[in-house]
Amino acid sequence: MSNSTLNIIKIGGNVIDDDIQLEAFLEKFAAIPGKKILVHGGGKIATRLGSRLGVEAKLVEGRRVTDKEMLDVVTMVYAGLTNKRIVASLQKYQCDAIGLSGADGNVIKSIKRPVKDIDYGYVGDILVDSVNVPAIKKFLEAGFTPVFSAITHNGNGQLLNTNADTIASALSTSLSGLYDVSLIYCFEKNGVLSDVLDDNSVIETIAMEQFENYKANGIISEGMIPKLQNAFDAINKGVKSVYIGNATNLHLFQQQKFGTRLIIK
Amino acid sequence: MSNSTLNIIKIGGNVIDDDIQLEAFLEKFAAIPGKKILVHGGGKIATRLGSRLGVEAKLVEGRRVTDKEMLDVVTMVYAGLTNKRIVASLQKYQCDAIGLSGADGNVIKSIKRPVKDIDYGYVGDILVDSVNVPAIKKFLEAGFTPVFSAITHNGNGQLLNTNADTIASALSTSLSGLYDVSLIYCFEKNGVLSDVLDDNSVIETIAMEQFENYKANGIISEGMIPKLQNAFDAINKGVKSVYIGNATNLHLFQQQKFGTRLIIK
Repeated sequence: MSNSTLNIIKIGGNVIDDDIQLEAFLEKFAAIPGKKILVHGGGKIATRLGSRLGVEAKLVEGRRVTDKEMLDVVTMVYAGLTNKRIVASLQKYQCDAIGLSGADGNVIKSIKRPVKDIDYGYVGDILVDSVNVPAIKKFLEAGFTPVFSAITHNGNGQLLNTNADTIASALSTSLSGLYDVSLIYCFEKNGVLSDVLDDNSVIETIAMEQFENYKANGIISEGMIPKLQNAFDAINKGVKSVYIGNATNLHLFQQQKFGTRLIIK
Repeated sequence: MSNSTLNIIKIGGNVIDDDIQLEAFLEKFAAIPGKKILVHGGGKIATRLGSRLGVEAKLVEGRRVTDKEMLDVVTMVYAGLTNKRIVASLQKYQCDAIGLSGADGNVIKSIKRPVKDIDYGYVGDILVDSVNVPAIKKFLEAGFTPVFSAITHNGNGQLLNTNADTIASALSTSLSGLYDVSLIYCFEKNGVLSDVLDDNSVIETIAMEQFENYKANGIISEGMIPKLQNAFDAINKGVKSVYIGNATNLHLFQQQKFGTRLIIK
């Protein structure tokens, strides 16, 4: 008997910041049948709220450094405002969503990133056993659609800011033993582009070997590399398929016409 | 066969605002055996955050008026910062907490308070069928401890600010058909006091008739009246017992030495 299908969809970037786009996306997400999980980033709302409060976002090598005040800001925005707005919208579309941080049901336990050259502050790294598979299975089997914000905890009372792409990838990997998992990264572009200036230059499939070439040639740009690396890691660890494409095209996913598909070879 | 016991505990007021008191309370809450639910208000964090953002709390007849900006503030603080901090702390004490707004799992659906003399803005009123008993039962039977923030939704995508005492009361009433429910209001005083200036003047039991007398005599002060009214409503609707007392004494609850006990007669 084959496993049942589980679609894990990550939404981030500009879509979160645009109420109309987000609403349209959520309606499409709600329409996907079967078991599914949504993972969302925080968009620019946290940065803007931080600015209004005099808490400035610090970036080191493109990574957000999270001090105590910024942790409060992202907890408020990611796990509070954004997560609950998304959940309330999904309920409107008859999708029985339940919003989760990693602390809720102890679903994702992380460790504070060890300090080497950079102290990232209250940033949580995901380990191989971070995902509480039995707890998430309970939610899925009870008919709920988990909606994960990018906040985790260390099991000792400390909340931690965690990369949402990594959460999506870790969930996919960990749940691939129980379900046939597809991981779908939604963002504001139509897929991985061979020409960043041409939105129609979507690369339909990328095998891992090609990814190495694209990186070497500079065709795949810097911001995309960790996203794709996460995706290939997931495939290597048992995720059935990974897609990356435009949130506004999510309705095309079931017709297999969505964005770039990543494959082993 | 008797129903199993369910303790529904409401925490609010100064305890939420004091990290050390809150932590001590949560450790005691976690130690209570069996099925339990925590309902929390937001304390003054929301008001302070609002002030920093230039969003001032408006009070009309002692009730908070919630405009769109203030709704965002309370959603961030109640459902985000406070709720997730509490959940992460409870996990530390081996209590498998899961934080919920009314939108999560559609557990509490409210209606925007109708405008009569006052437009309360984005405030949700609880109706007799607001509580989704089957959903909450799923969480309890799966071994989770639900932690409710005072945010609900209208089922049509709109989040609403809702009085936490009312949520605790509505949960107690609605779940009393399935469980033997005790409702415990925790706050910063030792119980209902016969002399507001004397913390040791705790009234051990109050029957409903006495409550009417205390109100008429002015012994029970204004802020306490809606709290007790909610409590007696709950008893009238099937809740087994209602207690009101000091959060720091929660460990005495199981010895039946906690605060004021409200009874029918």
